[in-house]
Amino acid sequence: MIAALAGGVGAARFLEGLLAVVEPAEEEVVVIVNTGDDAVFHGLHVSPDLDIVLYTLAGLVDPRQGWGLRDDTYHGLEMLRRYGRETWFLLGDRDLATHIARTDLLRQGQTLSEVTERLRQALGLPVRLLPMTDDPVGTLVRTLDGLLPFQEYFVHRRAEPEVLEIVYGGMAEAKPAPGVLAALAEARAVLLCPSNPLVSLGTILTVPGVRPALRESRARRLAISPIVAGGTIKGPADRMMRGLGWEVSAFGVAQAYADLLDVMVIDQADRALAERIRGLGLEVVVTDTIMRDAEAKAALARTCLAAL
Amino acid sequence: MIAALAGGVGAARFLEGLLAVVEPAEEEVVVIVNTGDDAVFHGLHVSPDLDIVLYTLAGLVDPRQGWGLRDDTYHGLEMLRRYGRETWFLLGDRDLATHIARTDLLRQGQTLSEVTERLRQALGLPVRLLPMTDDPVGTLVRTLDGLLPFQEYFVHRRAEPEVLEIVYGGMAEAKPAPGVLAALAEARAVLLCPSNPLVSLGTILTVPGVRPALRESRARRLAISPIVAGGTIKGPADRMMRGLGWEVSAFGVAQAYADLLDVMVIDQADRALAERIRGLGLEVVVTDTIMRDAEAKAALARTCLAAL
Repeated sequence: MIAALAGGVGAARFLEGLLAVVEPAEEEVVVIVNTGDDAVFHGLHVSPDLDIVLYTLAGLVDPRQGWGLRDDTYHGLEMLRRYGRETWFLLGDRDLATHIARTDLLRQGQTLSEVTERLRQALGLPVRLLPMTDDPVGTLVRTLDGLLPFQEYFVHRRAEPEVLEIVYGGMAEAKPAPGVLAALAEARAVLLCPSNPLVSLGTILTVPGVRPALRESRARRLAISPIVAGGTIKGPADRMMRGLGWEVSAFGVAQAYADLLDVMVIDQADRALAERIRGLGLEVVVTDTIMRDAEAKAALARTCLAAL
Repeated sequence: MIAALAGGVGAARFLEGLLAVVEPAEEEVVVIVNTGDDAVFHGLHVSPDLDIVLYTLAGLVDPRQGWGLRDDTYHGLEMLRRYGRETWFLLGDRDLATHIARTDLLRQGQTLSEVTERLRQALGLPVRLLPMTDDPVGTLVRTLDGLLPFQEYFVHRRAEPEVLEIVYGGMAEAKPAPGVLAALAEARAVLLCPSNPLVSLGTILTVPGVRPALRESRARRLAISPIVAGGTIKGPADRMMRGLGWEVSAFGVAQAYADLLDVMVIDQADRALAERIRGLGLEVVVTDTIMRDAEAKAALARTCLAAL
């Protein structure tokens, strides 16, 4: 069994490649997904990272955006705007159905894990999808403009305010969702997908018990750097790392994971960082990590599997 | 001021005509709407009659159906079906936005009156729209197949099961919404729109205090028969009346309202019933009540205003 820690777009694209080269019938894949960016819009519970992974692995994602559903329309959102509501968080009509169904099931008393399992089965995903926790947690970003919920910072404010601190709200009382610690204990390999090390994987690692479980795991643990040549392909990781005084490089990412990792996968463009990363006690694999197309995704997955 | 009691499609069409001939700046129109058919679908509070009146008077209704929003799409509903949910109650993408906004505001503690006022203002309606009550009530239909919530009977079962009884659930504890009794007391005229006398106007009249207020009102009170030539234009009123042993005619409707009415408006086709209706102590106006187009709607409204 392979376990993967996942944020949003970068993770989902990597997992697409992984599923192209792993036969789910032969080796189970369990994906543990960040829920720190979850938010409530119009009374509906939105789980952006779970949805991105769900839609991507179901073959339904909007390929251009990397999030939302392909060919979705925004008729409901136009009407919500007409009712004077804030509509900076884009919610397509098909996408809204996911949030409506999820919210309804949560209100009926189901856990986020149970709801996620139901949506996954309905869309026919061949992997298990686990929210990192069923408890309400929320990543907040302390900026020069104040403390902002992650979506407010990232989507509404376009990641423009300078970042001073990441605050993991509700985390002290949170427990890993059922199956999370078991997956980390039983997996032969744990993959840290190319996601934001501060607010995607960083948040998962902050759930009480997860970081120790990874440290003590006998699995081979491999991370793919989301930072290539000093910047991100997608998302605000580079700006956030800079704001917090981290080195904005694959080395900076490796430092964050050094206590729980065996192998760091970095891009050809960062070949020069390999020695410094080895200095942290990690093996280094240098390869092409830019997932331009299906072939590139599969090739990266194959390289990672070979390194395990 | 004119007050109107309204159900769904027939009432909304009549009110369109009324607003074409009444100048809102000169005479206020207050519409008191049935909420007994309200239902929760996918966790969202749907108020079918309020929405039909809202959409129609905002010029947004689907003119063919008489309900829902013009040119609406069903992408969200398709996705809900994919998640294995029941989708016999058709909810368009734009329409869903109304239910999402309403549910969110209700959950935040606003009353249905407050929410309705907000939606009405957002869509620029020139009339006040009052739900009959802010309390949770629900019309149930006892049939040979058991006790069914109204939408289950009407939409899902296509009004096919034979009707034995109408049960007004929650009504004993319900209070008229703020403004309802005042409107009935202060209006110079009260119009009973051409709606189902059992489950639209019948339900409004069952709200504690409404029927006595109408009986004691000094307003001229006028009803338009929704039954023409022994049948309805729209909806299940005729089948329901038959099931309960009512006479399925304008006379049957007049009987239901006889204690609180001054004028009964019936169609040309029912001219022969005029004498019997006068025998109930009512004035009778015979006119063309079929609202084929805008001109016919306005003509009917003018005839009603002239009779007041």
